[in-house]
Amino acid sequence: MAQGSENTLKVAHQAFAHFTHGLETGDWNLFLDMLTEDFSFWFPVGKFHGLNVGKDNARAFFQYVSESLKGGLTLTLERFTSNETTVVFEFRDEGMLLGEPYKNRIAVSFDVREDKICGYREYFGSNGKSN
Amino acid sequence: MAQGSENTLKVAHQAFAHFTHGLETGDWNLFLDMLTEDFSFWFPVGKFHGLNVGKDNARAFFQYVSESLKGGLTLTLERFTSNETTVVFEFRDEGMLLGEPYKNRIAVSFDVREDKICGYREYFGSNGKSN
Repeated sequence: MAQGSENTLKVAHQAFAHFTHGLETGDWNLFLDMLTEDFSFWFPVGKFHGLNVGKDNARAFFQYVSESLKGGLTLTLERFTSNETTVVFEFRDEGMLLGEPYKNRIAVSFDVREDKICGYREYFGSNGKSN
Repeated sequence: MAQGSENTLKVAHQAFAHFTHGLETGDWNLFLDMLTEDFSFWFPVGKFHGLNVGKDNARAFFQYVSESLKGGLTLTLERFTSNETTVVFEFRDEGMLLGEPYKNRIAVSFDVREDKICGYREYFGSNGKSN
């Protein structure tokens, strides 16, 4: 495996561990620390639907996610795939969303630049009611 | 790159070319020929929501997709990632769905066994109205 890919995997796995911690606990500081200032992300639905640019938007987004969750989500990682710059994680999650039981299947795609995450795309594999 | 990964990439790219052809033209024969008999797939919404097992269900599903589309979808591949057995393709699509303009961002994850696809998971990155 090329050196670039090894770093990409290492950085993305560290970020995914922090991302998991954020979803579980509502504490996003470690994850936010790993984002570049020009970080951009795509989200499928709602207030942050589409492309969102900049770390301030990311901070607002992850705070909004945790405010909606209350009690956190539990994640089960199913697999990951990668190339030189990107790692995709497929996982299932489960918890409470806006006071209702919530389950989903998710793919998140992290773009790595040096030791940071510069891009993120989230995709929904189910309807929020089963995973 | 390990030999297993090379075959996985080759088979998945061939299948993705046939998948693209199916979405564009409604002709799924080449794609269906690449599926194992025990092929299973996950779809996020609607009649085929959740886990669907067996090639007959796949045939019914892709026929249903093309009946809903009429005129086909145009795909733009953005990137792919892989491991020893799985390749994830992130793409945008655009066309007409049930008579309305349709656009989406999609991730599909193909599991490869020898020279066939044995599993497929589809994830939606947008709301069907923008990509």
